[in-house]
Amino acid sequence: MTRRNTPPNLAAVGRFAYDGLERVIHEKARLGILTSLVTHREGLVFSDLKDLCSLTDGNLSRHLQVLSEAGLVEVIKGYDRNRPQTICRLTDDGRRRFLEYINVLERVIADALTTAKDLPAADATEGLSPA
Amino acid sequence: MTRRNTPPNLAAVGRFAYDGLERVIHEKARLGILTSLVTHREGLVFSDLKDLCSLTDGNLSRHLQVLSEAGLVEVIKGYDRNRPQTICRLTDDGRRRFLEYINVLERVIADALTTAKDLPAADATEGLSPA
Repeated sequence: MTRRNTPPNLAAVGRFAYDGLERVIHEKARLGILTSLVTHREGLVFSDLKDLCSLTDGNLSRHLQVLSEAGLVEVIKGYDRNRPQTICRLTDDGRRRFLEYINVLERVIADALTTAKDLPAADATEGLSPA
Repeated sequence: MTRRNTPPNLAAVGRFAYDGLERVIHEKARLGILTSLVTHREGLVFSDLKDLCSLTDGNLSRHLQVLSEAGLVEVIKGYDRNRPQTICRLTDDGRRRFLEYINVLERVIADALTTAKDLPAADATEGLSPA
């Protein structure tokens, strides 16, 4: 309880805010859906996507609606041998925004793993400068 | 609209569920708070943490309460030269769980970046096997 209440220097303000983590993408289930879709470029059938992400029909539908309204995903209803079939696919804008999100996620990991080197306590305040 | 509705093989079921992404950690603001704290081992003064994460007093307080109730963070109230001061610090359990979370995040990124290699469409269905 002996540390002074020193303001972070200007460079450190907002250092860990991660504004680029777009909330519509960051939600856990949607992150799984988007990762599935980014690795299956031609799209995925609804039921396959559901299995890959371990979601229920209702949950997947709800998340696809959010992603579709945000312009990230397109949901195409059609037929396969006279049976109705729904294909889900990333839009071009969705692919771009998802990869931007992944870039920020890489920065989070790089930041977090500086600790893996077991910083001595003296170095752990590097973001802060004396008043 | 010519793809068959084929079930993913057993290995692929839940492949993108990312169960290890603990929700209490995954929330965007809390992810920033925990990354700040994991890189400042001896803890951070409340106001410094607030600046680093670009949060308001109220928001930070609310998130710290959630993290504290989950056993991830400890909030220590004391005095520095007769002025009240609040120090926030990761618990040992919090550090362990946060690094586990980061491991899963690394897997998400590795999965997502298979696309950066511009997989041909034929390879993009690798998780799926014919019925």
